[in-house]
Amino acid sequence: MKKLVNDPKNVVAEAVAGFGAAHADIVRISTEPIYIVRTEAPVAGKVGLVSGGGSGHEPLHGGFVGFGMLDAAVPGAVFTSPTPDPILAATKAVDGGAGVLHIVKNYTGDVLNFETAADLAAADGIEVRSVIVNDDVAVKDSLYTAGRRGVAGTVLVEKIAGASAERGDALETVAAIAERVISGVRSMGVALTPCVVPHAGEGSFTLADDEIEIGIGIHGEPGRARIKLEPADAIVDRLLGPILEDIPFVAGDEVLLFVNGMGGTPQIELYIVFRRAAEVLAEQGIEVSRTLVGNFTTSLEMQGTSITVLKLDDELTALWDAPVQTAALRWGR
Amino acid sequence: MKKLVNDPKNVVAEAVAGFGAAHADIVRISTEPIYIVRTEAPVAGKVGLVSGGGSGHEPLHGGFVGFGMLDAAVPGAVFTSPTPDPILAATKAVDGGAGVLHIVKNYTGDVLNFETAADLAAADGIEVRSVIVNDDVAVKDSLYTAGRRGVAGTVLVEKIAGASAERGDALETVAAIAERVISGVRSMGVALTPCVVPHAGEGSFTLADDEIEIGIGIHGEPGRARIKLEPADAIVDRLLGPILEDIPFVAGDEVLLFVNGMGGTPQIELYIVFRRAAEVLAEQGIEVSRTLVGNFTTSLEMQGTSITVLKLDDELTALWDAPVQTAALRWGR
Repeated sequence: MKKLVNDPKNVVAEAVAGFGAAHADIVRISTEPIYIVRTEAPVAGKVGLVSGGGSGHEPLHGGFVGFGMLDAAVPGAVFTSPTPDPILAATKAVDGGAGVLHIVKNYTGDVLNFETAADLAAADGIEVRSVIVNDDVAVKDSLYTAGRRGVAGTVLVEKIAGASAERGDALETVAAIAERVISGVRSMGVALTPCVVPHAGEGSFTLADDEIEIGIGIHGEPGRARIKLEPADAIVDRLLGPILEDIPFVAGDEVLLFVNGMGGTPQIELYIVFRRAAEVLAEQGIEVSRTLVGNFTTSLEMQGTSITVLKLDDELTALWDAPVQTAALRWGR
Repeated sequence: MKKLVNDPKNVVAEAVAGFGAAHADIVRISTEPIYIVRTEAPVAGKVGLVSGGGSGHEPLHGGFVGFGMLDAAVPGAVFTSPTPDPILAATKAVDGGAGVLHIVKNYTGDVLNFETAADLAAADGIEVRSVIVNDDVAVKDSLYTAGRRGVAGTVLVEKIAGASAERGDALETVAAIAERVISGVRSMGVALTPCVVPHAGEGSFTLADDEIEIGIGIHGEPGRARIKLEPADAIVDRLLGPILEDIPFVAGDEVLLFVNGMGGTPQIELYIVFRRAAEVLAEQGIEVSRTLVGNFTTSLEMQGTSITVLKLDDELTALWDAPVQTAALRWGR
């Protein structure tokens, strides 16, 4: 294992400190317990948005804290859910009197810990609603998860619900919009290599030199099939097929196409993947009207990609286009 | 070698096609010869900015084409300079009558081919000025280069000169501002792993499981020293020392601190690097007033980082802050 770290036990604390130093115009850092909060939080009268989960998926979630997106992010240890305490502290820090929405990826630990934090916040008089993101079509039930896993689609939920909160929508509306994104977003990924959790010091799984894992989870959980390496276009077709069949997406749909890097894949490869995905959607009469390409929901240095498709309507498109100012996603200001 | 590619010979053409499809609101693509140009080019009366070089360093340079930055980018084959023909074609495509600035990284092939293209453009009546970026303090003269190499500092040259051109400065002024950035920017990098050029199929160099290369070039060229892996903070000190001594940077200076990922390094590690670099600068009384962290000048999937420091003044800061709308760098619109 070769990593740019000091003591593996301090990886998250040091990275969060560096993140806070680099983006002091956008975020403040709490160190005990660890969470990342928008500089101007709490914003009076605005619904607060909180997400979080194990570290190692950066920029998810800290990179999405700021105007028009999250009010706070709670990073756990690498690939480990944050405990209820920091989630509760972040929830209190962003409560501007209009309630707080928890955006939770569907992993058993995250769901339980956010639930406990929501109960404790409610006991303190804060109204909390939760949405569970479960966009991964690869497998039903898996290591760490009952039901489908929450993966890169979470970025789209956070952006669109964040814009809803920023324009002044009430908690019920923000939650309903988040649910509409969740119901219309589907993803699937592939790994070419495993990744190494710093305090573990070895790969979370192994793949032979000519093997890839189709349907990989963002913690290296098993997917649908382990196959021999194929050309990029064939791999894209294996990912996109199950995504499109699931809702299903049909001719005439307008979509956002999001090609996500797992952390260690060169950008040049992500665009080769995008090219084929856009081609397949065009062949099926599905219109790609918005796009996102890059490392947004990663698995440390894993090589691989995931494809996410979101069904758009005029309102979701307008909320996607609305100004956002975070470390990892920024436009309009 | 495991990569998300089809025929290795088509990597650049397919990636550029995907890039054009993903960012059709910002760029147009020419396929024969291959270059990437801002949708509204040529902009009448504006100085045109053209950069380019071997592919494999994405988002450099195509990701920086758009409002407030480059007018065109010319990608060669992976790690191979583009020939004069596409550089000339891109130069013609962005000439709005106010002349064209070539921003060239200091590699022998790039310098020669941009020079030839500039001569051919001049013969066609286009006024061309060139600046050579040589920010890498690691080595003087190396594989591919006479003098210092041009690396991640190029991003800062392109942003700041781009803002100068966008506000309507004349060619001479834009070139002078680019030269001011070049004279005040220094970088140095480290590699933890080599990278694999797709058509070569094997690593450009080898490193033992416990070795790193201090002062690495962005094509894997040798650096200053091959040493045993050390804690991140010690590695940062090895990079930052030669950078700060070079100009030198001194107490009271105001700087932009840029921590660049080489492509395969998790973001969490880049922020650990940023944390230490900011700490060292603070100890020396150097004020970090602007920051940039992420994968901006990469070497395919290489694991590693580079640190870049730019001396700022009020005008350079204002040009850095000016609106930019490209695939990889965006704010203010």
